Amino acid sequence: MLHFKNDYNEGIHPDLLEALAKTNTENLPGYGRDRYCERAADKIKKAADCPQAQIEFLTGGTQTNQIAIASLLQPYQGVLAAETGHIATHEGGAVEYTGHKVLTLPSHQGKIRIQDVRSYLETFFADENHEHMVFPGMIYISHPTEYGTLYSKAELEALSAICQNYQLSLFLDGARLGYALAAKDTDLDLAAIAQLTDVFYIGGTKMGALAGEALVFTKNNRPAHFTTIVKQHGALLAKGRLLGLQFDRFFTDDLYIEIGCQALALSEQLKAILKEKGYRFYLESPTNQQFIIIHNDKLTELSKELTYSFWEKYDADHMVIRLATSWSTTQEDIDRLKAIL
Amino acid sequence: MLHFKNDYNEGIHPDLLEALAKTNTENLPGYGRDRYCERAADKIKKAADCPQAQIEFLTGGTQTNQIAIASLLQPYQGVLAAETGHIATHEGGAVEYTGHKVLTLPSHQGKIRIQDVRSYLETFFADENHEHMVFPGMIYISHPTEYGTLYSKAELEALSAICQNYQLSLFLDGARLGYALAAKDTDLDLAAIAQLTDVFYIGGTKMGALAGEALVFTKNNRPAHFTTIVKQHGALLAKGRLLGLQFDRFFTDDLYIEIGCQALALSEQLKAILKEKGYRFYLESPTNQQFIIIHNDKLTELSKELTYSFWEKYDADHMVIRLATSWSTTQEDIDRLKAIL
Amino acid sequence: MLHFKNDYNEGIHPDLLEALAKTNTENLPGYGRDRYCERAADKIKKAADCPQAQIEFLTGGTQTNQIAIASLLQPYQGVLAAETGHIATHEGGAVEYTGHKVLTLPSHQGKIRIQDVRSYLETFFADENHEHMVFPGMIYISHPTEYGTLYSKAELEALSAICQNYQLSLFLDGARLGYALAAKDTDLDLAAIAQLTDVFYIGGTKMGALAGEALVFTKNNRPAHFTTIVKQHGALLAKGRLLGLQFDRFFTDDLYIEIGCQALALSEQLKAILKEKGYRFYLESPTNQQFIIIHNDKLTELSKELTYSFWEKYDADHMVIRLATSWSTTQEDIDRLKAIL
Amino acid sequence: MLHFKNDYNEGIHPDLLEALAKTNTENLPGYGRDRYCERAADKIKKAADCPQAQIEFLTGGTQTNQIAIASLLQPYQGVLAAETGHIATHEGGAVEYTGHKVLTLPSHQGKIRIQDVRSYLETFFADENHEHMVFPGMIYISHPTEYGTLYSKAELEALSAICQNYQLSLFLDGARLGYALAAKDTDLDLAAIAQLTDVFYIGGTKMGALAGEALVFTKNNRPAHFTTIVKQHGALLAKGRLLGLQFDRFFTDDLYIEIGCQALALSEQLKAILKEKGYRFYLESPTNQQFIIIHNDKLTELSKELTYSFWEKYDADHMVIRLATSWSTTQEDIDRLKAIL
Repeated sequence: MLHFKNDYNEGIHPDLLEALAKTNTENLPGYGRDRYCERAADKIKKAADCPQAQIEFLTGGTQTNQIAIASLLQPYQGVLAAETGHIATHEGGAVEYTGHKVLTLPSHQGKIRIQDVRSYLETFFADENHEHMVFPGMIYISHPTEYGTLYSKAELEALSAICQNYQLSLFLDGARLGYALAAKDTDLDLAAIAQLTDVFYIGGTKMGALAGEALVFTKNNRPAHFTTIVKQHGALLAKGRLLGLQFDRFFTDDLYIEIGCQALALSEQLKAILKEKGYRFYLESPTNQQFIIIHNDKLTELSKELTYSFWEKYDADHMVIRLATSWSTTQEDIDRLKAIL
Repeated sequence: MLHFKNDYNEGIHPDLLEALAKTNTENLPGYGRDRYCERAADKIKKAADCPQAQIEFLTGGTQTNQIAIASLLQPYQGVLAAETGHIATHEGGAVEYTGHKVLTLPSHQGKIRIQDVRSYLETFFADENHEHMVFPGMIYISHPTEYGTLYSKAELEALSAICQNYQLSLFLDGARLGYALAAKDTDLDLAAIAQLTDVFYIGGTKMGALAGEALVFTKNNRPAHFTTIVKQHGALLAKGRLLGLQFDRFFTDDLYIEIGCQALALSEQLKAILKEKGYRFYLESPTNQQFIIIHNDKLTELSKELTYSFWEKYDADHMVIRLATSWSTTQEDIDRLKAIL
Repeated sequence: MLHFKNDYNEGIHPDLLEALAKTNTENLPGYGRDRYCERAADKIKKAADCPQAQIEFLTGGTQTNQIAIASLLQPYQGVLAAETGHIATHEGGAVEYTGHKVLTLPSHQGKIRIQDVRSYLETFFADENHEHMVFPGMIYISHPTEYGTLYSKAELEALSAICQNYQLSLFLDGARLGYALAAKDTDLDLAAIAQLTDVFYIGGTKMGALAGEALVFTKNNRPAHFTTIVKQHGALLAKGRLLGLQFDRFFTDDLYIEIGCQALALSEQLKAILKEKGYRFYLESPTNQQFIIIHNDKLTELSKELTYSFWEKYDADHMVIRLATSWSTTQEDIDRLKAIL
Repeated sequence: MLHFKNDYNEGIHPDLLEALAKTNTENLPGYGRDRYCERAADKIKKAADCPQAQIEFLTGGTQTNQIAIASLLQPYQGVLAAETGHIATHEGGAVEYTGHKVLTLPSHQGKIRIQDVRSYLETFFADENHEHMVFPGMIYISHPTEYGTLYSKAELEALSAICQNYQLSLFLDGARLGYALAAKDTDLDLAAIAQLTDVFYIGGTKMGALAGEALVFTKNNRPAHFTTIVKQHGALLAKGRLLGLQFDRFFTDDLYIEIGCQALALSEQLKAILKEKGYRFYLESPTNQQFIIIHNDKLTELSKELTYSFWEKYDADHMVIRLATSWSTTQEDIDRLKAIL
């Protein structure tokens, strides 16, 4: 079976595993106070050209979203997001569980439009009843989005300016950030993201970590007693070394970027093959997730040799499916896929 | 430096690491639906002689406590616990964060007394104003307790009977369960615990897992849509294999029990050495944590070669400290400790 | 100044005031255990032809919505509502504050469409990832809606059938229920509402109570220990008599219905006058709220003699405003309004 | 039947009722933006000699405690209170419902001791693990306490100094504040309370209001967008006039103080009668609640003619009961009680 279903179905990148194995017998303080967490944080600050950054390591994406949002919002505030945003759809209501509303905006291939944000905020503050409504306190974007699409630097600058204007936080969910940074035509590097957002996270799980996301507060805005807040959410890992060691390795010798580049190179090959074979694309994605419209019969046939993600029904005869390359995809996988398609 | 500070300061037990490494390139479903989670669950059911058990894997102790308690309690209920119980003291208010009160009872070397529980419940239901009060809905015990002490089978039976009588759930926090099961004089094995409690967890982190606890619902009482509840708490691990694989290994060839036995054998040696050297014990602990009363000057001296946990001030001249053996303690550690003391 | 701004800007209906005054020196149990609460409940059961109904009195609409929803939903469930529903817009995120998501559906003049509900539920349960999503656990409708519109009996039957099919609760927010029951062409009386919904509330505040809403559980489905839940929300009124006495009076000699009829008769006059004077209606409302599209200049002029609610901007030159009759509107008010318009 | 059971079992003080009736037909803005709320706030500021005070009107005591505490605490903070404090015992876990822990201290006739507070705080901040614990963020006291006892000015000064030192808020629950202010030997007037606390509330319900408490932020420390927070709790009363009008009247011609004085004069008579008749006091209370130890047989006899509150079992043959005078107690009540006793 060939696997293009997702980017978290294999274990751990061999270099990260090696880092774990090599340091395994070291006796280290718990709860993220070990030297590897510190070293990883230092390397991320450097990579993001953001010396004042405050970095916290958490275990998974929903957990990171939940804690970042809940800890930065005031009780009377909600978070603006695309209606297709991960926090709005596939996190089991984790944001609402903390008492905050997700305020949704139309999604354009996973992205929110600047004018929609602006119009929402203008309407809200013009409404004489807005004291009876949930205040927008943050803008959440995913980058890449759930559709593999990317924001441009100009878009992020515009969002950043709006946030400053209305005193909102700008939060970028980078569950697949490595695949965004490695995209051919992106003008957003880690430094630009650190500069333009208030908080973002560097996804580890989908880039080859066993578990682990690095949450970066960029404006000296980490909430006080963050460790206690993390504990209160049940999210403080005793052996924080697991997270620190992996990110220390990710940010040594540009491994994180390299993993992204390799997966995107294979994704470009995948796109080329799909085009060549005449598959119809659901949208144009510059990252590791490709969405195609496929006939039900063809899909049945492919299912015997290939795993993929079902996305949505397109029409009576067609489905939209997603094929994803990842840190663990090999050239051989692509070659075999070509043969199958 | 010799390390007796805690049981989670080294990495992962070599056998577990091997299990991770060996399966690393396997492509597996996410979110705990992989075959290793299933296999681990099957082995735990067998080990606990509890075929109807429902088993869920989570990442850490506080998370497991929080989710077990919040998902089993009704909104108007709280959980009874010793005032020294982990949930009452060192979890950052994680239970309260989910809206539930921890109702405290006096602690006797970490344990609650049957008569105190009975008296609490009788008083509560006799109070004509109890509809204005938080209803007790669960009893929480830790085993071993935070003081290393153990409940007897008779005590657990008594608690179980009370719980049945008042329709409470009995929850056993087994963060260090392996060190309890291996104790010399305990009459509580896994099967007895499964039979007498409604829910308990088998601690992995402190027994050599990188992260991971196995939550066991013993009475076909797992809350509906538990996966969604776990997601909502931000606690659903994408690569659930990490948890399944470790517990699969723990429960192969009795590794879990063996680890406990080895640590307790070393703990017995430690006790003997401490007694021999004339140290005063703070209490009698049958498990891997030993508490001694030590003069400040002696402590200063030892601190140069030894790590330990500060427990509390005893008097002007003395401290109570904790020394813990663990899955990673070696005979050599004990021998060197003997030399130092 | 003539007041058509809202239906809660005057005090208390004189008959209710008399009931309070007459019983003022009676010594009564607190917290809703007095005989007037009991009597009011009995009368409501009779009026709704629902002997098994369980009735609880609360202070305001948002409070009632919040408690009804939070107490009936499971933790992993959300509530379906029109995107214009009061709980989705003007309750400050009170539902989310309790940890539950409001799942929105398109609004058609304030109402949700049967086919949208059906389609939402079919899509949800067909989604293989729905365990990662918030489960729909309840349908919320307002009747009249925030736009003054009404559901028909056929529509309520259809919603009820869907709810039974999917095991959802059907909740009807009757903040202005009296104005619905009195509508000329409605085929929904109190008995039909009690039969077709699982829970609904009879609004008092907007019908002439100082404060007070009667929450009716119709299927023997009141959550256990509801008093404690109300207390936990900070919503248990010490002098519950205030609520019981007013509803006892509302449901004596059909006062509640009579108040509705009188306000609607005046609303019909208002509509006739507006039509006669050539005002454009924003929508056709059969209840006490009328929405008209008015030129900005005309509005400025009217504002000198009339209070109204601003609804929304219609175009560069026009606004939508709302004029509401209420329990306190008099024939003289209407006559004076006619003169002004 | 003679009523000494509680201070909220009769309706509304006649002067407040008159204020409601007189203004009943006035058309006023909703949600506390009416002129009576404003006027009441102004009068309270004057009475408390606290021009910068920010005053909000809420409906009941538990609601007021819940909102004051939740809105002033940070997420990682809890509130210190006597273990007998109302928030710790009889509010159904309303504080925990908002995610915050009540951190209890020993109770001395309902009061907390300065040395216990100091010791708690010193121990907490000295604990190297305190980042894993709930941070104390507020001190809650009730005045009078649940046992009718009072703090002295010196005690309040000491608590205030500790709060400043540790940056905690000092919150005084004044559910029965009028009965404290009127006590013979108290040195705490409204101005001293406003000066020494950060927030307190002036109880209305138990002083003759139908419902209503005035929450006073004394240090320009009202949380931003407090109206939205109140709404989010389901606690924003549409007809805020109900609250404003009653407090406007309470603070006109010193009615609030006068009510307290009258009830305490009768309480002093009650004490004298009880002493004269040889009843044993459970404690010395300077306010409107008197606690006596009474033989079971005597109690059975008295129960035929008298209502009281059961407090607790004293021994096999005796009970502790509470007799309370209130705004509605008359000289005739006392005279009849004397005859009965």
